[in-house]
Amino acid sequence: MLVVMKAQATPEQVRAVCEKVEKLGYKAHPMPGAQRTAIGITGNTGTVEPGTIEEMPGVGEVIHVSKPYKLVSRDVKEDQTIITFPRQGNCEEATIGGAELGIIAGPCGIESREQALAIGERVARSGAKFFRGGAYKPRTSPYSFQGMGVDGLKIMAEVRDRFGLRIVTEAVDSESLFHVEQYADVIQIGARNMQNFSLLKRAGRSKKPVLLKRGMSATLEEFLMAAEYIMSEGNYNVILCERGVRTFADHTRNTLDLSIIPAVQRLSHLPILVDPSHGTGKRNKVTPMARAAVAAGADGLIIEVHHDPDKALSDGNQSIYPDQLDALMSECRQIATILKRKVAKPLPAKSNEREIAAAR
Amino acid sequence: MLVVMKAQATPEQVRAVCEKVEKLGYKAHPMPGAQRTAIGITGNTGTVEPGTIEEMPGVGEVIHVSKPYKLVSRDVKEDQTIITFPRQGNCEEATIGGAELGIIAGPCGIESREQALAIGERVARSGAKFFRGGAYKPRTSPYSFQGMGVDGLKIMAEVRDRFGLRIVTEAVDSESLFHVEQYADVIQIGARNMQNFSLLKRAGRSKKPVLLKRGMSATLEEFLMAAEYIMSEGNYNVILCERGVRTFADHTRNTLDLSIIPAVQRLSHLPILVDPSHGTGKRNKVTPMARAAVAAGADGLIIEVHHDPDKALSDGNQSIYPDQLDALMSECRQIATILKRKVAKPLPAKSNEREIAAAR
Amino acid sequence: MLVVMKAQATPEQVRAVCEKVEKLGYKAHPMPGAQRTAIGITGNTGTVEPGTIEEMPGVGEVIHVSKPYKLVSRDVKEDQTIITFPRQGNCEEATIGGAELGIIAGPCGIESREQALAIGERVARSGAKFFRGGAYKPRTSPYSFQGMGVDGLKIMAEVRDRFGLRIVTEAVDSESLFHVEQYADVIQIGARNMQNFSLLKRAGRSKKPVLLKRGMSATLEEFLMAAEYIMSEGNYNVILCERGVRTFADHTRNTLDLSIIPAVQRLSHLPILVDPSHGTGKRNKVTPMARAAVAAGADGLIIEVHHDPDKALSDGNQSIYPDQLDALMSECRQIATILKRKVAKPLPAKSNEREIAAAR
Amino acid sequence: MLVVMKAQATPEQVRAVCEKVEKLGYKAHPMPGAQRTAIGITGNTGTVEPGTIEEMPGVGEVIHVSKPYKLVSRDVKEDQTIITFPRQGNCEEATIGGAELGIIAGPCGIESREQALAIGERVARSGAKFFRGGAYKPRTSPYSFQGMGVDGLKIMAEVRDRFGLRIVTEAVDSESLFHVEQYADVIQIGARNMQNFSLLKRAGRSKKPVLLKRGMSATLEEFLMAAEYIMSEGNYNVILCERGVRTFADHTRNTLDLSIIPAVQRLSHLPILVDPSHGTGKRNKVTPMARAAVAAGADGLIIEVHHDPDKALSDGNQSIYPDQLDALMSECRQIATILKRKVAKPLPAKSNEREIAAAR
Repeated sequence: MLVVMKAQATPEQVRAVCEKVEKLGYKAHPMPGAQRTAIGITGNTGTVEPGTIEEMPGVGEVIHVSKPYKLVSRDVKEDQTIITFPRQGNCEEATIGGAELGIIAGPCGIESREQALAIGERVARSGAKFFRGGAYKPRTSPYSFQGMGVDGLKIMAEVRDRFGLRIVTEAVDSESLFHVEQYADVIQIGARNMQNFSLLKRAGRSKKPVLLKRGMSATLEEFLMAAEYIMSEGNYNVILCERGVRTFADHTRNTLDLSIIPAVQRLSHLPILVDPSHGTGKRNKVTPMARAAVAAGADGLIIEVHHDPDKALSDGNQSIYPDQLDALMSECRQIATILKRKVAKPLPAKSNEREIAAAR
Repeated sequence: MLVVMKAQATPEQVRAVCEKVEKLGYKAHPMPGAQRTAIGITGNTGTVEPGTIEEMPGVGEVIHVSKPYKLVSRDVKEDQTIITFPRQGNCEEATIGGAELGIIAGPCGIESREQALAIGERVARSGAKFFRGGAYKPRTSPYSFQGMGVDGLKIMAEVRDRFGLRIVTEAVDSESLFHVEQYADVIQIGARNMQNFSLLKRAGRSKKPVLLKRGMSATLEEFLMAAEYIMSEGNYNVILCERGVRTFADHTRNTLDLSIIPAVQRLSHLPILVDPSHGTGKRNKVTPMARAAVAAGADGLIIEVHHDPDKALSDGNQSIYPDQLDALMSECRQIATILKRKVAKPLPAKSNEREIAAAR
Repeated sequence: MLVVMKAQATPEQVRAVCEKVEKLGYKAHPMPGAQRTAIGITGNTGTVEPGTIEEMPGVGEVIHVSKPYKLVSRDVKEDQTIITFPRQGNCEEATIGGAELGIIAGPCGIESREQALAIGERVARSGAKFFRGGAYKPRTSPYSFQGMGVDGLKIMAEVRDRFGLRIVTEAVDSESLFHVEQYADVIQIGARNMQNFSLLKRAGRSKKPVLLKRGMSATLEEFLMAAEYIMSEGNYNVILCERGVRTFADHTRNTLDLSIIPAVQRLSHLPILVDPSHGTGKRNKVTPMARAAVAAGADGLIIEVHHDPDKALSDGNQSIYPDQLDALMSECRQIATILKRKVAKPLPAKSNEREIAAAR
Repeated sequence: MLVVMKAQATPEQVRAVCEKVEKLGYKAHPMPGAQRTAIGITGNTGTVEPGTIEEMPGVGEVIHVSKPYKLVSRDVKEDQTIITFPRQGNCEEATIGGAELGIIAGPCGIESREQALAIGERVARSGAKFFRGGAYKPRTSPYSFQGMGVDGLKIMAEVRDRFGLRIVTEAVDSESLFHVEQYADVIQIGARNMQNFSLLKRAGRSKKPVLLKRGMSATLEEFLMAAEYIMSEGNYNVILCERGVRTFADHTRNTLDLSIIPAVQRLSHLPILVDPSHGTGKRNKVTPMARAAVAAGADGLIIEVHHDPDKALSDGNQSIYPDQLDALMSECRQIATILKRKVAKPLPAKSNEREIAAAR
């Protein structure tokens, strides 16, 4: 903490602040400057902080400095976290945070077995190793499609078995998280729940990796603190995901903040993905922003794909077509190479289920 | 929905959009203008919407118009909602949304019985009829004080019994909500949980009124839709609360958006309170903004008060002193009169517990 | 400036930063803390600052602390600035920043002599002492009405002579400022020009008071620095004006940030007005927010009034009717009293020009 | 314009709105829907718009639809604008908006002849064809370095002559614009002046191309309207430039909004560049965001480079080193290829002035 005194603050006022600080159990470091004195405060353990210093005579401003995160920080662990999914069934080994980008694709919501299988097949062929799909949908309106629940999870398990794709799906409360961790490979916590601390703690007690989306108006510090909640319960496999933030700009649904990629990489060892689908909300902007995310150094992408967006029960406007996914993967593959990273190769266009699974 | 065609769109392109719209089951209303044609779309029930119109040749823009809320809307219920708390024990009758403003005051978190009783007494004397205090605290850091839980609820119940104050306290998940509804008079849903739809639905099945805080970056429509979630489950006693939104401005912790008061009043019949404590995050701005909220037409206030803010375990910086609460109440009382509303009178300064209870 | 070192920074790294700081001519104050070391830097004169410290090994973050404003600051001048307009012609003495609120009202743009006189008469009767009206309009579109220019200024001068109202009008460049200072009593600098530093300096060389509107996304510091630009050229009669900032919220045209009133009053001695017309952009929100501004402690208001808003060439949606102005003035008069301030009384409803002038 | 009636609006109320609209000279298109009626309004020429419809009985909301820009729009000109700089002196032919990306690099401000030449040489060697440098600096503080003025322009002219680099520099008012157009190849209008309409009009009367930076809180529509101002005066050579917008996010100085690239490209034929230096404000984020910009489809970059950032008189924190520029150019060159575009090759590392000029 730093207390900046007013220019006309008297030595007595400076002394009074220092005494108060020391009385509260901290250490005060007065620094006289050309125009005014600042007082550094150390020893702040973070549980109690003096609530009345700003009101003391001569005080201009109180600035909070200390970063409260620990486990997420490169201060604690310098090596990049790589989350490994070992070979299992039809699924080959995969990683998120390593040299190969983690590409997650699939429909916004699971609407039927046919839809999921049709899209899953195309996702697998594109080279992506992770399949996304919502079984529990947090919708702004109570009257909108709320997801298929456990039935949706079972369909996704079938997609995994057939096409060798890992499943990423959202949990919205402790009950759905209980089911999600049975069926899925990665538990997603959505933007709206980024500060649902009960849910974060519950996810922290799960054995499955957690994909944590940035809240719509979360600062980097709040985002990292949400990851800290999960890690503080013992689950260290956290994947961060930028999905656009809310600003005044109205040409996209959200403003995709790609600068958070290098910012996260400076402060934290956790991998960071980007969701250009929610991040823009418009089909024609998904591919350019996916390329940009890879170029900025993202550890992967999460993308909405639908074979018939006109009939999608949610987010049809932002889902790309399977052919667009193939093109996007191809471009990102080339960009990744420039950054000494890679994107897995596509499977032969006509490969059938057995061949897809065998190729894994 | 409104589709705005490009200026150079051909009649065939306009026709193609209309045909697609009709094929999807809606009605298309083409409106040729001086420079371009717009196509109104009606019959949109809100469950499915065409995800590919924006990509059709000649289409410039697609604008979404329909408001999805129903039960919260003045379209459905023109009369203002008044939530009544009948006389019970030491508590006299009280309302929120009526002529008398609903004033809620108390500490950020319940820290001990002594603290709660000391503050509760002063809150009661000030004329406020509702006591706030957190037993379950949603804290940004997992290492911060997380609240006393059920013990805190029991302490608040004692504050109610002694001083005739109704209890308002936050629930953060279904488990805490179960306890809160046993002890409290009003269930608070915090800003971070405004789109925790599971929690909203659970609150909607409670018999207690719900105070719903606006999310940090919630639009008015999202705020009303969150209330709709609660109401759609059968609980019509919802109180809205503005508590500041996140913007670039850094002279306050949040930017208190008082213009939402007349905006809510135009669209909805629900009462709207203001929280100037979280809304500013700074003690010296609480009183001016509380006055402003009343002057703008708010149905009440929720204010953090602490008798010893230096030792507060949370939010000491934004808690006012009991004497400041008295002064604030006095000023708001006068302003309320100008708007043909009122604030309950203070109790005599030296009244003891029994007299306070008797005065209720 | 404060340099926060990483937790694992070595003593050598701390020393290297201190040496670099000293080499650049500043003084370094290392403060070892429980978890990490911070280094305070003083002697920063503000012209040069080290651009590479953030990249040095072991450095976590660099925080800028010093406030660059001087003349605007209460550090330099503790007494509130009161701008006095002496009796002159039909204009009685008036002040802005004193006990009486400065109320400025009039149309968005001067459209004709008839319009200006009709509105001017009603403004004078309402008790307001200042008349606003745009002769040079900064419009988003080059095809919109751009104002009447010097002809508009002459019409306003006639409004002053007839009704004893001081004239407030915007200058948009040095040429228009030259004309504005001939005719007007207060030079307005609009939000879009808040960081048009050439214009600010030119206004600083004028002898007329300047009303400076907050830019659409200006922080408090930037706002005060813009005032500093004017004052640094010798014109100390600066009036600040909050007019809403740009946020994600879409229920009003801008988000009126009333909390800046107490924030300005803490840091600066300059008066601060509020513009609830641009601040909300909607007629039905002007009166509630005007009341709120006065209750928050504003030194006055600037309000758009039009007798026939359907025919207004600009901003008809946010202009109130003259009768609404009367009601607003009456309510603000009562609220001002509670804050020990006052609003001038209205003139008798049927007073004619001569009587209005005589009453001044 | 679209008027959305309330659900309980009566047929008479709908009719009254239609009549008012027609009376004002527009055409009304009522569209009865399942829940409510909407009324489309066409024939709006943009100069007058009814200011009182929102207040009429039964009206829920008024939505503004029409886009006021014309000359900037693809509606008017479908082909992409390519700005050509013909061969001249030591400068080879260059374009902005064509297949080759326009790369502009140089110091924030021109500080001395030595500094400009040292940096200019490295810029030329990197393969960039445009040199940036401020002679007129819009600084937040009146006490900061304000630029060298005409002397700085002359130094830049020497950089052009020696190294064959085109000069891009900012004008801040009509006086500086007069000088800038004498010496520079591209006139830059800065973010703070994006809505300085007098300056825009003046630039519109210049014969030199204009680089227009997006304002700190400008919507896409406002940005395009600012370009429209320039074009409406006859200067069609406008280059747009995204440089970050102001949001709540605090890990960068501004939030770089790359999604505006595809958004501009959909609506307008003008080229769009990206400034990752101001867009992030931090040296370590410039390169990742430059790559991302190219990957998103930007038509070029504008980058701050300094050979000794510790001594820079402005923006040292965000200037990259010449070696970093070389690496950045190399990466962007590779990414450009993937998008079927190109970046000019670097010159041999040891080439001297004459060779550099000859290579042009």
